[in-house]
Amino acid sequence: MSKIYFEDIAVGDKTTSESRTVTKEEILDFARKYDPQSFHIDEEAAKKSIYGGLIASGWHTASTLMRLLVDNMTNSRAGLGSPGFDDLRWIRPVRPDDSLRYESTVIETRKSESRPDMGIVRAEVKLFNQNDEVVLNMKSIGMVKARPE
Amino acid sequence: MSKIYFEDIAVGDKTTSESRTVTKEEILDFARKYDPQSFHIDEEAAKKSIYGGLIASGWHTASTLMRLLVDNMTNSRAGLGSPGFDDLRWIRPVRPDDSLRYESTVIETRKSESRPDMGIVRAEVKLFNQNDEVVLNMKSIGMVKARPE
Repeated sequence: MSKIYFEDIAVGDKTTSESRTVTKEEILDFARKYDPQSFHIDEEAAKKSIYGGLIASGWHTASTLMRLLVDNMTNSRAGLGSPGFDDLRWIRPVRPDDSLRYESTVIETRKSESRPDMGIVRAEVKLFNQNDEVVLNMKSIGMVKARPE
Repeated sequence: MSKIYFEDIAVGDKTTSESRTVTKEEILDFARKYDPQSFHIDEEAAKKSIYGGLIASGWHTASTLMRLLVDNMTNSRAGLGSPGFDDLRWIRPVRPDDSLRYESTVIETRKSESRPDMGIVRAEVKLFNQNDEVVLNMKSIGMVKARPE
């Protein structure tokens, strides 16, 4: 498969993914390691919380988005990694057996001033559940190789 | 232990944590599930990459910060969760056996306009390695209960 270089990417380009299901076991496993708050690790306590039941750690939701990005976009791009991202918001809780997919829309492309062999691509990324409700959105920043001359 | 309420928090307040070590096994385990790029899951490929060796997924680094926050701050605060965060940047790679700790400084506090029973606390959070180098920084946003009258 030929790689997608910086010059191949334009503002307005959209990419989407298949869906990935988040299981109860995965919610519990992630949260016990990284986010052991009661509404992430204890079903009974979660029922009595403002969430009314077990919900995934927001970092688990974001990590699930990363997995979808790697499977659908990162590996086809001549990518050089990411310096970070902006404006991440958890819009709705993710619950056991929710099925997540993303839509990403390029909002800015610019050549790097310091490194002419690469460019910066910014995108608005939305993560949806099986009811087409947004559960997370953020603005991603990617470094992408320029096409070799 | 008495809880920390919104009124107890002021701009300039600092909190810190103990250190948490990130093992090679944990780097591989996290990345295989959530970020299977070669420099996160394959030691040989990582040696030949621009990173010169295995590095942790940035989402693993952020999740490790969350664990430190839960252990050191979240459980003592009358917290109501978080809507998200801003300006996350991965400054330096995290490598096997790096030991991470954070410093958090409150930069803004304000009463919620829609919900008088809570306030919003924004903080600048820096994650350091064992050489006191910043590996990640971000601006967190927390919702904290007002003190009951």
